Amino acid sequence: MQDWPLRVMRLVDHAEREHGEGEIVTAWADGSVTRTNWRAVAHDARRMAQALEALGCRKGDRIATLAMNHSRHLSSWYGAAGMGGVLHTINPRLFPDQLEYIANHAEDRVLLYDHAFAPLVEAMKPRWTTIERYICFDPPANGVGDTGFMEWIGEQDGDYAWVEGDERDPVGLCYTSGTTGNPKGVLYEHRSTMLHTLAEAAPDIFNLSKQSVVLPIVPMFHANAWGVPWAAPMMGCKLVLSADYRPDTMCRLFREEKVTHSAGVPTIWLTMIDYLERSGDKLSDLKQVTIGGSAAPRAMIRWFLEHGIEVGHAWGMTETSPIGTCGSRPLGWENYSIDEKVEYISRQGRVPFGVELRTVDEDGNALPRDGKSSGNLQCRGPWVIRRYFKAEEDATDEDQWFDTGDVACLHPDGTMQITDRAKDVIKSGGEWISSIELENAAVGFAGVAEAAAIGIAHPKWDERPLLVVVRQEGCDICPDALRSHLATKVAKWWLPDAIEFVDELPHTATGKLSKKMLRERFSAYRFADADARLEELRR
Amino acid sequence: MQDWPLRVMRLVDHAEREHGEGEIVTAWADGSVTRTNWRAVAHDARRMAQALEALGCRKGDRIATLAMNHSRHLSSWYGAAGMGGVLHTINPRLFPDQLEYIANHAEDRVLLYDHAFAPLVEAMKPRWTTIERYICFDPPANGVGDTGFMEWIGEQDGDYAWVEGDERDPVGLCYTSGTTGNPKGVLYEHRSTMLHTLAEAAPDIFNLSKQSVVLPIVPMFHANAWGVPWAAPMMGCKLVLSADYRPDTMCRLFREEKVTHSAGVPTIWLTMIDYLERSGDKLSDLKQVTIGGSAAPRAMIRWFLEHGIEVGHAWGMTETSPIGTCGSRPLGWENYSIDEKVEYISRQGRVPFGVELRTVDEDGNALPRDGKSSGNLQCRGPWVIRRYFKAEEDATDEDQWFDTGDVACLHPDGTMQITDRAKDVIKSGGEWISSIELENAAVGFAGVAEAAAIGIAHPKWDERPLLVVVRQEGCDICPDALRSHLATKVAKWWLPDAIEFVDELPHTATGKLSKKMLRERFSAYRFADADARLEELRR
Repeated sequence: MQDWPLRVMRLVDHAEREHGEGEIVTAWADGSVTRTNWRAVAHDARRMAQALEALGCRKGDRIATLAMNHSRHLSSWYGAAGMGGVLHTINPRLFPDQLEYIANHAEDRVLLYDHAFAPLVEAMKPRWTTIERYICFDPPANGVGDTGFMEWIGEQDGDYAWVEGDERDPVGLCYTSGTTGNPKGVLYEHRSTMLHTLAEAAPDIFNLSKQSVVLPIVPMFHANAWGVPWAAPMMGCKLVLSADYRPDTMCRLFREEKVTHSAGVPTIWLTMIDYLERSGDKLSDLKQVTIGGSAAPRAMIRWFLEHGIEVGHAWGMTETSPIGTCGSRPLGWENYSIDEKVEYISRQGRVPFGVELRTVDEDGNALPRDGKSSGNLQCRGPWVIRRYFKAEEDATDEDQWFDTGDVACLHPDGTMQITDRAKDVIKSGGEWISSIELENAAVGFAGVAEAAAIGIAHPKWDERPLLVVVRQEGCDICPDALRSHLATKVAKWWLPDAIEFVDELPHTATGKLSKKMLRERFSAYRFADADARLEELRR
Repeated sequence: MQDWPLRVMRLVDHAEREHGEGEIVTAWADGSVTRTNWRAVAHDARRMAQALEALGCRKGDRIATLAMNHSRHLSSWYGAAGMGGVLHTINPRLFPDQLEYIANHAEDRVLLYDHAFAPLVEAMKPRWTTIERYICFDPPANGVGDTGFMEWIGEQDGDYAWVEGDERDPVGLCYTSGTTGNPKGVLYEHRSTMLHTLAEAAPDIFNLSKQSVVLPIVPMFHANAWGVPWAAPMMGCKLVLSADYRPDTMCRLFREEKVTHSAGVPTIWLTMIDYLERSGDKLSDLKQVTIGGSAAPRAMIRWFLEHGIEVGHAWGMTETSPIGTCGSRPLGWENYSIDEKVEYISRQGRVPFGVELRTVDEDGNALPRDGKSSGNLQCRGPWVIRRYFKAEEDATDEDQWFDTGDVACLHPDGTMQITDRAKDVIKSGGEWISSIELENAAVGFAGVAEAAAIGIAHPKWDERPLLVVVRQEGCDICPDALRSHLATKVAKWWLPDAIEFVDELPHTATGKLSKKMLRERFSAYRFADADARLEELRR
């Protein structure tokens, strides 16, 4: 058989040849909508690769972007990769100290950014020590500031052959901010990206085809927008990108571009559903949503199913490229009742071919796939991390098992259910209470917009749950009624010791609930009776 | 990212772990039906690998099978590959001289065969010089003859670890009988097989998922049953195998096992459709058929669409693993009229990511993708042959282009249309007449069961078309009416100079129409007026 290294530039070559007219639509932050196609993206990528070489950039150099989702950002991915570079997508919502650390640690040579982030870039320039050139994707019309992207690549003719190399060469770099220490870089390879893309498009995962119109509502700096910008050219999907996540903009895009497939975190979908319910708008072309990043509440899954939209409930992380599991539907699915479907999808689905999962107890012993035993979730496979960028040790054990930091339970049918983040589990009296279960139960109660459960130090039980609730606009909630509702969903000893109402919960840059920030905010919190009990013990 | 060689044993490992209870149903030649699952197949494969090693077989050795489709044949694939062996699937319909040549050329060490082929095996034993051991998949109850498969592997305990190695190691061998010379061996690699399998399962190709029940009506010795026995464990499909292709057996299997996906050559589907029309039987669970091996007539495509079944029209060959193209549906498909759908699917679809196609003229110049220019079809990609087994030269040019022997036209939208086999094209007055177009037009006429067009030597035009027709049972056809029908479908100068009616057309072992045999049969044929004209010219 033939030699054919798995390199990402084959994606844009294929798309240019086979789907040259395939549309890429961008809704920009200023409300304008532009259209391009794979032929133009390939041309721009070639010109950008030339422009990078003109700057002196060479194979292996890191090229950074600080941008939302749009077609120029897309072209820049293929331009950086085509020159043999390593694409470093920076999350603009990181703190300045983190931004300083990662760009310097990555030794980025060029940064391409959105004008919206110009103040941030200006503030960071003195702190970034390796970046030699700044390019603005959408420079202001007055010509002030860094060179514009189209002007920069406009100096080149596009007569360029991609830099070739080994399929194990790096192609992407994404930092993940852990709970402690500095962010860590996950270095993606051409091969890992290509195998991930092949797996991701399958019917049981994202189900992408020439008939799909796909709109990822997940930023391109967040684990490569879950790989959608790699998968769309492979399968010839129409790709819709939006730099603006406001629900009205999104819904208009869904409608006008006839979006069939989308993907995003639960928070995004909550906002969308809330808007749809209030506006009466419809997503009539939408066939499948993938929900990931954190656990999808049952009420959300039910909403989609009741609106005739299939739900893929995914689990993964930056270290897994990111797809670890997705909600494949079992044989006989059409005979499931809606309750059975909701129950099934509330688990995080199964692995695609390539990913292997196991759960282990605290001593590292593998647990049975019995649907009962919860343990630390570990995974391995061709798109799972081995070693963080510049790290001196592997992030895996000797059998390549990577510990995900999640706590999960594996079912006999192969489905996986996240019980909690290892660090979010509430440890009460030597047993574990799942914060996720509590939150999902709370969100099912009328009037609850969002809920978070965290462990609060307790003199007797070590920790006890506190439930923090955001009410839906104009709703009043009786704490006792909410508690009675929870009692029908979880074990009695899991019931929160207190319920607090707040206006807003803290979220990360990617829209995930930040338990870390919430715990900080409630670090001084004590349960009333617990304090009394503490006093008692102290006496 | 992690090391993870693409080796086929990962398929059965994955299936055992994730789809252990996934069913494999076999309808045997004697009418019985048995069921097994991936856990049992994996166990049998391990025991067979042990049994092979006990015989002294080692990595790289060729292990042959001479068998129809059934679960033991399936287990033997994974057993041979698991030991590091190369699985050589022999077509039992080959002529004895070919059978002798290929087993000796492959240096097969072990042959596993169906009892139905015992007379053939006995006749061949003296001629096969390298086979040391014969194993019968289904030995007769009287104990006479070679050791039975279950008895043979029954001596082993299944405590076995697959032989590891490089992903470019060979795993399969399939001979293709050309028009001249000896059959040529196509050697599949672990990597090529795995990439082909990943591509094949995609929504636009076979569209296989955990919800699929797949029945390949293509023999496992024919380009690995188009890869279905590799794809089913990857995606967790229920797999239905049948050693018996009679339409009543097949239709019962489709119904009882609720088959959703199937694949076969047009001749098989003609027989099936004929049976369904006569019996009133329905294939109510069937969602998609893939038709390949030779061009699907429009009438057949229409029949499936009118029965609510999607059609994937595929093109490929042993040298392409075999998927070269398949009939992906374009964006907006639901708005196509049935006529537009038939027209679109009558082309052979588009390439999956991985395959690259071009057409060239007789001087090797690439032709435009204009939907008009026909030329020799060439392809390349990771599952396309580079060199035949034991050949001294590559089968490709220096840019890895493999000449397929087909004549095709590429359309601007990326779809490919086979015009003819290069050797079947009818050359008339310096222009080409497509035999396939003529046949498809003929099959659309009421009463025509099957039709073949071949070129007959002609003194003036070099060749002129002869149409050979098989009538449907009980139908009478007026040649002039058929000719008038053809005149509405093809250019006037393409109309056959004569129409001959026969009881049967010759077919190959895999059910394809054999133009070669048909040409031999009509080698002495002369058109009446041509002879007159020849006489005229001679005078």
